[in-house]
Amino acid sequence: MARLGVVHTSRGKIHTPAFMPVGTQATVKTLTPEEVKGLGAEIILSNTYHLYLRPGMEIIRTAGGLHSFMNWPGPILTDSGGFQVFSLSKLRKITDDGVYFRSHLDGSKHFIGPEESMEIQRILGSDIAMAFDECSPFPCSYEEALTGVKRTTLWAERCLKSPHAPGQVVFGIVQGSVYPELRARSALEITGLDFPGYAVGGLSVGEPKPIMYEILESTTPLLPENKPRYLMGVGTADCLWEGVARGIDMFDCVLPTRIARNGTALTWRGKVVVRNAEYADDFSPIEDGCGCYTCQHYSKAYLRHLFHAGEILGPRLLTIHNLYFTLSLMEKIRQSIRDGCFEKEKEAFFKQYEM
Amino acid sequence: MARLGVVHTSRGKIHTPAFMPVGTQATVKTLTPEEVKGLGAEIILSNTYHLYLRPGMEIIRTAGGLHSFMNWPGPILTDSGGFQVFSLSKLRKITDDGVYFRSHLDGSKHFIGPEESMEIQRILGSDIAMAFDECSPFPCSYEEALTGVKRTTLWAERCLKSPHAPGQVVFGIVQGSVYPELRARSALEITGLDFPGYAVGGLSVGEPKPIMYEILESTTPLLPENKPRYLMGVGTADCLWEGVARGIDMFDCVLPTRIARNGTALTWRGKVVVRNAEYADDFSPIEDGCGCYTCQHYSKAYLRHLFHAGEILGPRLLTIHNLYFTLSLMEKIRQSIRDGCFEKEKEAFFKQYEM
Repeated sequence: MARLGVVHTSRGKIHTPAFMPVGTQATVKTLTPEEVKGLGAEIILSNTYHLYLRPGMEIIRTAGGLHSFMNWPGPILTDSGGFQVFSLSKLRKITDDGVYFRSHLDGSKHFIGPEESMEIQRILGSDIAMAFDECSPFPCSYEEALTGVKRTTLWAERCLKSPHAPGQVVFGIVQGSVYPELRARSALEITGLDFPGYAVGGLSVGEPKPIMYEILESTTPLLPENKPRYLMGVGTADCLWEGVARGIDMFDCVLPTRIARNGTALTWRGKVVVRNAEYADDFSPIEDGCGCYTCQHYSKAYLRHLFHAGEILGPRLLTIHNLYFTLSLMEKIRQSIRDGCFEKEKEAFFKQYEM
Repeated sequence: MARLGVVHTSRGKIHTPAFMPVGTQATVKTLTPEEVKGLGAEIILSNTYHLYLRPGMEIIRTAGGLHSFMNWPGPILTDSGGFQVFSLSKLRKITDDGVYFRSHLDGSKHFIGPEESMEIQRILGSDIAMAFDECSPFPCSYEEALTGVKRTTLWAERCLKSPHAPGQVVFGIVQGSVYPELRARSALEITGLDFPGYAVGGLSVGEPKPIMYEILESTTPLLPENKPRYLMGVGTADCLWEGVARGIDMFDCVLPTRIARNGTALTWRGKVVVRNAEYADDFSPIEDGCGCYTCQHYSKAYLRHLFHAGEILGPRLLTIHNLYFTLSLMEKIRQSIRDGCFEKEKEAFFKQYEM
């Protein structure tokens, strides 16, 4: 089911399968937009919940939207805020109207429903907005998951009726937890609405990977072939291969940038914890033959020194490497599909990759 | 006394008056070497005490020296470690041999004297090494200052006799606290030794600025005209003008980079505390007309957001601006000397600069 595609937005094309670096607070942590672009990113993701709370909508509105505020002229996808409200905020209460919650920053009271989410994303001015959904946790009972599916459909309809920014499109989201029949129902209901793209939500939330792969296998065939499919919150190397193999076109994940800041590098052989003592006098790059700026100029010994000395350049150099790795991996996946050898390359990858 | 010059090192020329950005722990905090160079820096300073403790000499030696370790191919000046031992370490005991101290990192016991300092700087492989001196604190009695002057001369002789790295030169340091006759004595003794450059040490350690200027006025005329004069630890805009006016050729200071990380920007009108609430919806750059990357692409509102959100890009963008400001100021000073209008430009500067 692996496939090549191009997603067209008013701010540029996205060659799929694509990985979207995450810029939660209007910045891909440690990097400038030029660096993110230089690493090969064609689109970034930003978070509605965070930006709504800080700096707040008045400032983004006055700045003329998120692109202008953060100096990223390319496409931006914004999440709906739902997932982050559920996982980060306090005292949340979910009803069919939406979610009442308190800010994790200052405890202030807020409400976000489908209309509010669309309005925030309209002001942000993202190129792809996500429908406001209820993301079921894992584990989750059948009944809870069913409630989530029903609300997600109800809210999806209200999202489509809300005003969008010029050129902005909205993607629908399929929920249903780990229950194939709920996934099928959600897919049927959501694809019954006319979204230009569809996401599989509620995966990579703690369930075992084989279950994620099974759900994907039964769900993606239910999504229209001529529209992009986005697997939310997924971005480890193995899951990228497995997701593409199951017909996914778009991915996002904080992992490459987050573990970079903890001193962990991604390589074609698995993770390298640069902070470790064994690298104190290792003057080779993170990965031999890697074409990234970091590997071209710095040794593991130097990177380890930066982390131990608490120097900001450390997280920055590892973020560069990890995004380069992930975006290069996507290019390799695209090339292998182009060349008709996706399965062969996938096997070769897993042969040398240690999880 | 303002003057133009060129300091020749085996790794390149330094056009003076020059400001040297500080890369304490083998990195100019938040920036890559290419960025530091792009901002106009022709030489950086690095700290012997810090690098001696972490990553330690074995690692720097194996890396082939500091330039190679940190990927900075240009000239590096290293301090002697003396000042930092006095100000950072614990339980220090100073004798004519040198300084016994405990690491501020782990409390481990160490000794650095003139020979040790030269040996560390030899391994670091800096282009300009500094003689190991005793920097008197402020305030300081005449007797203590006299002891410092005597030791500084004694140690300077021992530093000159110690082996250096290929192409490495050593600068002598004049001490004497705020006592003109001790300064004169120190200048006489130190210039009696054949150093290729001389620093004025022990200033900017807490004394009022008028006293610093007075000491400079009486000291620099005692230093050879054909050799570079370096005022250690000085780098505020007003002191740079005043230092050059008194015949100083080289400066270093952590201030531009340190206050950047606290959210304070340097401008031609004085400091701008970007963190302040008044800039929350100020969409103008830090300084109108500034040519730096930060001012060309980002508003104060965005920068303030980055600082409030704890984003690393904030300190990074302000470091770029503050170094650009300081290095541009030095270029303006050099140009004004070239054009024969140093005094006029200095006056114009102080007319709009708020301290």
